[in-house]
Amino acid sequence: MSSQKRLMYYGKGDVFVFRTYQKPLDGIKAIPESGFTGRNNVIFGMNAKIALEGEFLESFTKADNSRVVATDSMKNFILRKAAEYHGSTFEGFLHFVCKRFLDVYSHITAVEITADEIPFEAVQVAGDTHLETSPLVYRHSRNELITTTVKVQRSKAGYELAKQESGIRDLHLIKVSGSSFYGYIRDEYTTLPEAKDRPLYIYLDILYRYNKKEDAVADNPAVYVPAEQVRDIAASVFHEADNKSIQDLIYRIGLRVLQRFPQLAEVQFLSNNRTWEAVIEDIPGYKGAVWTEPRPPYGFQGFVVSRQDLVNEGLEKAKESVKA
Amino acid sequence: MSSQKRLMYYGKGDVFVFRTYQKPLDGIKAIPESGFTGRNNVIFGMNAKIALEGEFLESFTKADNSRVVATDSMKNFILRKAAEYHGSTFEGFLHFVCKRFLDVYSHITAVEITADEIPFEAVQVAGDTHLETSPLVYRHSRNELITTTVKVQRSKAGYELAKQESGIRDLHLIKVSGSSFYGYIRDEYTTLPEAKDRPLYIYLDILYRYNKKEDAVADNPAVYVPAEQVRDIAASVFHEADNKSIQDLIYRIGLRVLQRFPQLAEVQFLSNNRTWEAVIEDIPGYKGAVWTEPRPPYGFQGFVVSRQDLVNEGLEKAKESVKA
Ligand SMILES: Cn1c(=O)[nH]c2c(=O)[nH]c(=O)[nH]c21
Ligand SMILES: Cn1c(=O)[nH]c2c(=O)[nH]c(=O)[nH]c21
Repeated sequence: MSSQKRLMYYGKGDVFVFRTYQKPLDGIKAIPESGFTGRNNVIFGMNAKIALEGEFLESFTKADNSRVVATDSMKNFILRKAAEYHGSTFEGFLHFVCKRFLDVYSHITAVEITADEIPFEAVQVAGDTHLETSPLVYRHSRNELITTTVKVQRSKAGYELAKQESGIRDLHLIKVSGSSFYGYIRDEYTTLPEAKDRPLYIYLDILYRYNKKEDAVADNPAVYVPAEQVRDIAASVFHEADNKSIQDLIYRIGLRVLQRFPQLAEVQFLSNNRTWEAVIEDIPGYKGAVWTEPRPPYGFQGFVVSRQDLVNEGLEKAKESVKA
Repeated sequence: MSSQKRLMYYGKGDVFVFRTYQKPLDGIKAIPESGFTGRNNVIFGMNAKIALEGEFLESFTKADNSRVVATDSMKNFILRKAAEYHGSTFEGFLHFVCKRFLDVYSHITAVEITADEIPFEAVQVAGDTHLETSPLVYRHSRNELITTTVKVQRSKAGYELAKQESGIRDLHLIKVSGSSFYGYIRDEYTTLPEAKDRPLYIYLDILYRYNKKEDAVADNPAVYVPAEQVRDIAASVFHEADNKSIQDLIYRIGLRVLQRFPQLAEVQFLSNNRTWEAVIEDIPGYKGAVWTEPRPPYGFQGFVVSRQDLVNEGLEKAKESVKA
């Protein structure tokens, strides 16, 4: 047996939190790839998952519940704290909740929370003379969503930000023309035809990490990176240039994200290939073709792009990176 | 930037493999908690996910596909190898495929495959005089399933088994009477009433690891641990004694699994609490009550039980553990 720490945590998943009229996020600098400059936070909604670590081994080994914060109480705790947090970001909220947990329960040593946004979009409604944005009615979106993880650990200094990442999940993008995939290994296991122009359809999760984790949770729009701008960079880069593979594409998206946001250390991709299958490739006299959803299996990639890549590409000067 | 290895892999998911008339698994020793002694393997079916690591950085950074094994070819590779493998376990099959990948592609440094069983159950059919087990018709089960991961890395010696775990996923068990949950922390965040007899309904994933990883992939029934027996131990232990929490329950299941299988090093649990919510607690003159599915959120636990716990409980003598 190793003397390593034993895996031991417990918690609550599907904690749905909806806070109305949260403080708006504004002061966000525009970037060329995105129209996003803020969130009104009229509905600040998320599905959170919380896990605690701490000194409660005997709840497992001795059926001793005296140091068990019931997971039901964890849910109550998070919901009540949603009324006490007055910042404007998921990152700030999770950080706040983690610290309050450590304050209240001295036998808890670390708190990790992941929150997935429950996105609501503005709707246009009839005004007296033209369409207006309703400040009351919102449309629940089943599209890509923001995801954020914060883990705070008890330390000598009080709190230590042990983990922080933010990103976008379940972004589905298709480029109908301008993607290829050829030049790969051809051997006895190869049956795939080369593609010079395929309708590249990808599912993307993009997670990014800051040079200083504290910047992520500071509720400071001058250093905050909104996932919506990262999402829009992905679409812009996809649009701009032909690509030779998903590998090629995600690397370029990563470089652009890091160029736009010097406060970031790295960007991680998890991509899926969902490229349609051709059924009728030529429609005489017309542009286009007929396609269908691909059969399984699906391809995937996992890759991290870091500031060192910008240096390698000559897009940034080498320097000592600042580590949080 | 750290000098740590960069996260970089790619692969294929939802690779469905069905091999008919695979070699049966037999020679499995019965245990008191289980009627399981083998698999006929008439349908050896799985959903596999493969990820490769290796020297293909330039497929990302230079759009150079010359070292890319197309993920489509990975799928072909796995399917063809299913005709070349003649053992009787998922573990043995995955190990075989990983090694063949390293043999064929010298720039690949590691191969990880996870396979989730696609379970098919025997059906009873009318015979001449009594019900018989059909050797031809099988019923696809949507219940719990076997899961197996094998990762093989290129090493000086040729291959190194870098990771191996086996287990059961999505086991749903309810105990209608004999479970309690009380004595936990009561404070301003507590609204949960204590429960002296609750219908404890859990979802369980159980993963186990061997002292010697090689035992898992050796296709040797004398040391092989079938996930079906682990599943049946969970039900037996749940049945036998009253429990004071899920934490208490999974610890006891873990101890029993390790007692039955000295070749295992540890057992990992991921449990979910799906206990029903009471609607009508008393039905005058009758036993029972009326319940409904719980509202979210759900509680969860993550925990590892190791041989050291058996020693702590006086169930096994301390000794130098054998590490693979
Ligand atoms: C279609 N296709 C494969 O089969 N493999 C790969 C890959 O590695 N990258 C791709 O962009 N496409 C693709
Ligand atoms: C109902 N319930 C909670 O709220 N917390 C917990 C816990 O930690 N363990 C349980 O078995 N049940 C439970």
